[in-house]
Amino acid sequence: MSWQKEREQASAWFAKLREEIIVAFEALEREAPEDLYGTAPSRPSRFERLPWRRGDGTRDVLRPAQDEGGGEGGILKGRLFEKAGVHVSTVHGEFSEGARAAVKGASGDGRFWASGISLIVHPKSPRVPTVHFNTRMVVTSEWWLGGGMDLTPMLTDARRSDHPDAKSFHAVCERACAPHGADYYARFKKWCDEYFFLAHRNEPRGIGGIFYDHLNTGDFAHDFAFTQDVGRAFLEGYVPIVRKRMSETWTEAEREEQLIRRGRYVEFNLLYDRGTQFGLKTGGNVETILSSLPPIAKWP
Amino acid sequence: MSWQKEREQASAWFAKLREEIIVAFEALEREAPEDLYGTAPSRPSRFERLPWRRGDGTRDVLRPAQDEGGGEGGILKGRLFEKAGVHVSTVHGEFSEGARAAVKGASGDGRFWASGISLIVHPKSPRVPTVHFNTRMVVTSEWWLGGGMDLTPMLTDARRSDHPDAKSFHAVCERACAPHGADYYARFKKWCDEYFFLAHRNEPRGIGGIFYDHLNTGDFAHDFAFTQDVGRAFLEGYVPIVRKRMSETWTEAEREEQLIRRGRYVEFNLLYDRGTQFGLKTGGNVETILSSLPPIAKWP
Repeated sequence: MSWQKEREQASAWFAKLREEIIVAFEALEREAPEDLYGTAPSRPSRFERLPWRRGDGTRDVLRPAQDEGGGEGGILKGRLFEKAGVHVSTVHGEFSEGARAAVKGASGDGRFWASGISLIVHPKSPRVPTVHFNTRMVVTSEWWLGGGMDLTPMLTDARRSDHPDAKSFHAVCERACAPHGADYYARFKKWCDEYFFLAHRNEPRGIGGIFYDHLNTGDFAHDFAFTQDVGRAFLEGYVPIVRKRMSETWTEAEREEQLIRRGRYVEFNLLYDRGTQFGLKTGGNVETILSSLPPIAKWP
Repeated sequence: MSWQKEREQASAWFAKLREEIIVAFEALEREAPEDLYGTAPSRPSRFERLPWRRGDGTRDVLRPAQDEGGGEGGILKGRLFEKAGVHVSTVHGEFSEGARAAVKGASGDGRFWASGISLIVHPKSPRVPTVHFNTRMVVTSEWWLGGGMDLTPMLTDARRSDHPDAKSFHAVCERACAPHGADYYARFKKWCDEYFFLAHRNEPRGIGGIFYDHLNTGDFAHDFAFTQDVGRAFLEGYVPIVRKRMSETWTEAEREEQLIRRGRYVEFNLLYDRGTQFGLKTGGNVETILSSLPPIAKWP
């Protein structure tokens, strides 16, 4: 499989970015005010690291005969972040005959390689929005990059495009896109709005962000630089919103609204999310994949 | 469309059975001991009835030009039954060209008619099992009956085939099957075990029951009598278990185990359940379809 150097660059970047995000999230955990989130433990909340190998778990039928890579889940159960998962994985293998037609560049040669970072955060406070971010590189007989980030405010009042959090989040997305393609922000914003949509409820998941896939302009350095900028933009876009909102008090009614909104998040992830369904059907790490589900949710 | 008389018989039976189930559930609500479930309200908890017409709701694109039937949701939010949905519907219409190939008897003529009863119960107590039941009749250029019932105990100790609740539930299923076909119970038990299975976790949803589909022996009276017996068996199988278990006290740890088990129930219904996915994708009534989701669930 070709693009050895590019693959190494990408997986090294995803791993490095993940450590930066973990450091930033653990710092926020320490900062969270005690009057709202309880006393900080003497050892502040840390991410638990859960290494796994592809084919681990109970489904022997899917266990590959040889090494096919793996990853490391990272799960934080904290005061500020009621549940956060920040994961990396780098896997390779071969698509079955039946699955090849659906994958770009895999119809002739079924071998694939994929590396990525993915995260979902469920803050304790209904005033701090939920966020999702991932970027990835996939190689078959072709290569491409993909990913994105989207913000899901929990309270109706914050679920509008002219809310300050939505505006600042989108401004960061736009700045990340601008140097790389004149139409990137508009295209990838639209893609995000279309993808993160609950058709059965005729409602968006949140206030959007950017989403892209199959990005290959023929210039890896260019496309990879964009993907790196999206990664940096995640921290730049989300951390200030957390820092701004985490000191706001909330009501029981707002907590209730959050738990119901989280139910919709579950609906999206299980009914529509391609990553979730793909992961679960191909022997991915269940604990890591489903760490996207909220610690508690309601359908009253 | 033919089988006018048979269709009327079936939908009348589903409606009648539903009223019997509602009466039985409301009686259990009144009986639930006050020390465990709080004071019974002066007006005991009743099912709220939610009539709907096919194509209601916000998705105008799916609203049929003419009447295509509808149904009545029934939702109880009670003391004993934290949430219970007992619904009937009778709809008709025409499958799109693209959808016809997947439906028995619809490849030439896309018209269909379907009527059924469906229910899911989420009891407050972790010691009272969750249950699902449905039976239906579908008509295209052919007709068939289908349905089943399955029990999902929440606590590990009760999730085994030699537990008294599992044994009594299966005994009732077996008795309902016996007069109608020598192999029915064995076949439909196996079908149930295979269908209500969470492949990604390699675990069954509960302790099973019976499940059947596309039943048409050529003798409607025979197949309909079986479907009626399955309906009667639901009350006979479930009500005594509720009555036996509802007076047991439970611990906080057991409630926690229940909420996590309910999370698995959400996973099944959104990832695998064909009825849920079919309903949501064909403009069914969202509130009724998703009333199967528990009032509160955890993924800690």
